[in-house]
Amino acid sequence: MTLASDLAACLDTAVLCADRARAAVTPYFRAGLTVDDKSDESPVTRADREAETTMRGLIAERHPDHAILGEEFGFSGVTGDWVWVLDPIDGTRAFITGRPSFATLIALFYKGRPVLGIIDQPFTQERWIGVDGAETRFDSATMPGQIGVRTCAGLAEAELSCTSPDMLISPYDNRFAGLKAATRRTSWGGDAYGYGLLALGQIDVIAECTMKPWDWGALVPVVTGAGGVMTDWQGAPLTLESDGTVLACGDKTLLQDAVARLRPSP
Amino acid sequence: MTLASDLAACLDTAVLCADRARAAVTPYFRAGLTVDDKSDESPVTRADREAETTMRGLIAERHPDHAILGEEFGFSGVTGDWVWVLDPIDGTRAFITGRPSFATLIALFYKGRPVLGIIDQPFTQERWIGVDGAETRFDSATMPGQIGVRTCAGLAEAELSCTSPDMLISPYDNRFAGLKAATRRTSWGGDAYGYGLLALGQIDVIAECTMKPWDWGALVPVVTGAGGVMTDWQGAPLTLESDGTVLACGDKTLLQDAVARLRPSP
Repeated sequence: MTLASDLAACLDTAVLCADRARAAVTPYFRAGLTVDDKSDESPVTRADREAETTMRGLIAERHPDHAILGEEFGFSGVTGDWVWVLDPIDGTRAFITGRPSFATLIALFYKGRPVLGIIDQPFTQERWIGVDGAETRFDSATMPGQIGVRTCAGLAEAELSCTSPDMLISPYDNRFAGLKAATRRTSWGGDAYGYGLLALGQIDVIAECTMKPWDWGALVPVVTGAGGVMTDWQGAPLTLESDGTVLACGDKTLLQDAVARLRPSP
Repeated sequence: MTLASDLAACLDTAVLCADRARAAVTPYFRAGLTVDDKSDESPVTRADREAETTMRGLIAERHPDHAILGEEFGFSGVTGDWVWVLDPIDGTRAFITGRPSFATLIALFYKGRPVLGIIDQPFTQERWIGVDGAETRFDSATMPGQIGVRTCAGLAEAELSCTSPDMLISPYDNRFAGLKAATRRTSWGGDAYGYGLLALGQIDVIAECTMKPWDWGALVPVVTGAGGVMTDWQGAPLTLESDGTVLACGDKTLLQDAVARLRPSP
């Protein structure tokens, strides 16, 4: 078996996971507390757990030798080269407040590097599929968009995005401010959905921090397969041991300047 | 003619305006700069102008004695009790970055007070219709949601929302911080769409500032017709002469405490 043929089999599994997660999550969105009166758990917690449970079951059945790391249920016991990294609902606040910008994230790591990623939005029915070495695919019945980052002449022309100022704890707040000051405009909100928009050429730079592997794993193949680049705030590749800082640039020529702006002041 | 029968005729016009604005705006969303290579204008500017032009034409034809105030083309010459207040694309940054949370806003003021409002999202095809004295209507083929604000025991339980920290210029930043500190959680982004979510019982409090009448006019009938309340940051009714601060509470019992937190420090 080659890596490519392994990946093709895993892609089937990943797509099936995304389909099942959609079905699991949908009943809980904008549903208030009436979905299950017997439970003390919030709808988002129920949705999170049910989606992760169904995905873990499917992966364990089809790839018993692969490990699984999920945002809800942690690490499964298996060790090996392949690790599935799952975030059933990325954008908890978006989900809670009824915004269709949350996403289900499905990543597959091989020897510590993300080689497959899906970003799925159940209500706009947008799905980004990134596979190592291939162009990212964007599936959507009703939403417009073409895969491909856009060129950007420099940070002064760049649209910057970040999910929330509240994630920018010290010392990241000052470092982010340095980047923000150099860019044209900033928009807030978005979570993983923002990286999908970057892959469609709508956003130039995203800088975030305090991110876990399940927050960024699926995004890397999507962004790189659309022509962009993702690193940490030092410009180094993202690994399971990364410090939680994440930087995405659509136009790769922005990377060096963005890293320089994100550097701590001397 | 009674106010109610006038409003029924105007509602037909408003709905037709929303339909035409959808058609005008749609081609420009996520379209890059290729929509019209002959034009130097950005897609969002083109979309804004074309949507406002079509709406103004329709209103002038059907209600020649009504004034029109639009975000793009300003005030029409007619004076009288009725003023249409239009924002073809509320959420310019959302539109520019490809987020389906921008909206077309259509308001009708009578003697200085908003009596009809539509919030329309062309891609999720969500439409909120508020008419003075009636329950707000939520039309959507695919997105879930039920009209009706939710009860909230106090600010400590409340989901707060605001479009962007960048709108909170001094002295509003400190006043907003006072409210934020008293609430449970804050989410960012949303523009007018957030008020639609408040009307669906998904958000409890929204506080924003530097707002123009076309930013908030359509929201008032939507929020009040869902059981909520909208005022300025002093708790006073919003008028064409308001200072640009806007506060919306789903549960009306939150209003007094929210206003107290938004008061300038002595």
